[in-house]
Amino acid sequence: MASGSPTVGTVSSRVNETRLWDRHMEMAKIGATPAGGVHRLAFTPEDTKARALLLGWAAERGFSCLADDLGNIFVRRSGSDPNAAPVISGSHIDTQPKGGRFDGIYGILAAFEALEAMEEAGIKTRRPVEAVVWSAEEGGGRFEMGCMGSQVYADPTKLPSMLERKDKDGTTVKDAIAGMMKSLPKLGRRPLKSPVAYCVEAHIEQGPELEALGKTIGIVTAIQGSRKFKVEVTGEAGHAGNTSMKNRKDAAAAAIAIMANLQKIFHDPEDVVRFTIGRIDIVPNAMGVIPGYAMFTIDFRHPDEETLARLGDQIEVVSREHVGPCAVKVTQIRRARTTQFKSPVPDAVLAATQRLGYSHMHIPSGAGHDVRYIAEICPAGMIFIPCWRGISHNETEDATPADVAAGARVLTETLVDLANR
Amino acid sequence: MASGSPTVGTVSSRVNETRLWDRHMEMAKIGATPAGGVHRLAFTPEDTKARALLLGWAAERGFSCLADDLGNIFVRRSGSDPNAAPVISGSHIDTQPKGGRFDGIYGILAAFEALEAMEEAGIKTRRPVEAVVWSAEEGGGRFEMGCMGSQVYADPTKLPSMLERKDKDGTTVKDAIAGMMKSLPKLGRRPLKSPVAYCVEAHIEQGPELEALGKTIGIVTAIQGSRKFKVEVTGEAGHAGNTSMKNRKDAAAAAIAIMANLQKIFHDPEDVVRFTIGRIDIVPNAMGVIPGYAMFTIDFRHPDEETLARLGDQIEVVSREHVGPCAVKVTQIRRARTTQFKSPVPDAVLAATQRLGYSHMHIPSGAGHDVRYIAEICPAGMIFIPCWRGISHNETEDATPADVAAGARVLTETLVDLANR
Repeated sequence: MASGSPTVGTVSSRVNETRLWDRHMEMAKIGATPAGGVHRLAFTPEDTKARALLLGWAAERGFSCLADDLGNIFVRRSGSDPNAAPVISGSHIDTQPKGGRFDGIYGILAAFEALEAMEEAGIKTRRPVEAVVWSAEEGGGRFEMGCMGSQVYADPTKLPSMLERKDKDGTTVKDAIAGMMKSLPKLGRRPLKSPVAYCVEAHIEQGPELEALGKTIGIVTAIQGSRKFKVEVTGEAGHAGNTSMKNRKDAAAAAIAIMANLQKIFHDPEDVVRFTIGRIDIVPNAMGVIPGYAMFTIDFRHPDEETLARLGDQIEVVSREHVGPCAVKVTQIRRARTTQFKSPVPDAVLAATQRLGYSHMHIPSGAGHDVRYIAEICPAGMIFIPCWRGISHNETEDATPADVAAGARVLTETLVDLANR
Repeated sequence: MASGSPTVGTVSSRVNETRLWDRHMEMAKIGATPAGGVHRLAFTPEDTKARALLLGWAAERGFSCLADDLGNIFVRRSGSDPNAAPVISGSHIDTQPKGGRFDGIYGILAAFEALEAMEEAGIKTRRPVEAVVWSAEEGGGRFEMGCMGSQVYADPTKLPSMLERKDKDGTTVKDAIAGMMKSLPKLGRRPLKSPVAYCVEAHIEQGPELEALGKTIGIVTAIQGSRKFKVEVTGEAGHAGNTSMKNRKDAAAAAIAIMANLQKIFHDPEDVVRFTIGRIDIVPNAMGVIPGYAMFTIDFRHPDEETLARLGDQIEVVSREHVGPCAVKVTQIRRARTTQFKSPVPDAVLAATQRLGYSHMHIPSGAGHDVRYIAEICPAGMIFIPCWRGISHNETEDATPADVAAGARVLTETLVDLANR
């Protein structure tokens, strides 16, 4: 443990609340929406511009920057031991469609602030410390797949299929990344799955607990498991005025019946189940036409693997039961098991929090994060800070400058601790 | 009645089945879809190109062509009495998104074929006869409003608000029409609501009755009434993983509950009700985000005014009852009363059908048509021909060359009859 080292407190006191806040506001200009949010989808010009801004700050400090095959970017502060694997910390720079100013970008700017603080404190860690931009964590909004960068980093066998994914306009991930990298300064090469010693991700809670209970720091214990599905209903388009109801194959009507019945079976009196139909696409989607095709997505999360299996498997059953004269296809897009964060990272976060004297609590994460995948290749953990009313993936998402800085201080202490192990 | 005139049969025998069919196929190339349908939305370059093709055929015959403020086009064959109001016949050249090869365009090509037949037969009618292109009958797919041209022609007070309507990209009807007219030959001016003696519209049935009962000609008795609604649900966007169900304001979940309950109350054991949810829009429409906004449309039709009133008024009641923690706004976009076609047009169609010896039946129209609005300013009626399996507003929409020609022959006889009254 580094808790007795002379650098404790000294380094984190160099975390600059104003600089860190101002950088959030500067980033928020890239993809800013009229309602005060951020719309910065994966691998778009906005994503590229935000990365360029970060790389500019890194260049001012002389940090070396590396990129891998999925466009993940690593801003590196060297350690004293040239053979030691790095401690890494980061999150995503892309947002949900019409998202907020803190989700993702906070984890990157807090990690970069930690590097700045170490630099200003003039300390040397044994291991390198890196601030990471994971590509397309919110890729679901464009490519129907999230955590694209961290998934591939942890498991490079996923690279070919990931690069082939297409957005609605038919642009592949491969072409989108190539277009982005062309507009960025030339970066060094980082092989996928290069060894990592520890990984820590700072993030806004995206839930109401910390704020409601008056705690500044959440020491994250686990990320709940999730299953994502796509349900496609195929019927037959027809004229809304002339086709009798009994002769219709109305794909939207069938989808509505399926969705309403899914809502019933996913109802949980204990309110632990998270069930979201976030996307509905109808074809041709015109008032006077009986829809010939309907697609909707299901985002289902639960901390208990048995419930994830049992309820998730009901989706296909219920869909077949209520599809009427149409045809239905249920596809599981992704399944993530519950990730338990194990020693030593949560312990290091707790120790740093206690040393700095912040109020805190242990808390599970309802949302998935990049660190879920990195946890498969190294010990990992997370730091949460409160967010206003627990609202996230929304243009009104907000946090306070003091909480933003507090999280960065805990992160800085934690990284220095881990980098000296 | 012209039934005893020497022109009967002589004129309609000049209807050329091959020419009429080939013109349908030529028109179907404009906006052709890979699946064999037509995607030719109102006032787009495809719409413009189709009009230019028709105007070219008109020019070959030396017919004069006029246009009004909504872009409706009138191809005129003069009569012997320069003061007589014309008999008009036409339909729409635009299609639903991914529509078929016959809906609309048939009524225009059949009317134009009637003009060709009169020309070739060398007869003169007392009244002028005009083939009409009504603008944006399928405008619902682009401007959330159908029968735009015929509505304004019959009631010019609607002109200003109609011109201000916008599509999803913010293009106004006014600009769309101006852009289209610029690309067409210069046309003479036709004032809105210029007097019309009679109006007849030929159309595919868009329902299965004629085909099922083996009838070639449908003499249309009425157009059933309809009410169109937009239901908007406003909630609050949030993160699908972290927001507990009881703290959500999920606009899609509320919309699904409303839609499912509307399906129940609109269920009609006698299968007379036509109830269609044709369009659903979700914002932001991403898998991992609780939707903050949901909009859907309702297309409700019924021949009985009392039922239209009673059931239609339930939409707002049911929406409020099932909206949960969200807010809901129900807007009636359009209401059309049932149109009864009265003497003498249906009688003239029947007489022509009988003279030509086609099998026939009287039939109501489930779909709305431009003639519904023109029926407000002159006696009017419709001729239906069978369409394959009753399928319409669909890329597989089909009809036979023989039926297409039969309808045109009945139309020709009817127009000659009415134009000599």
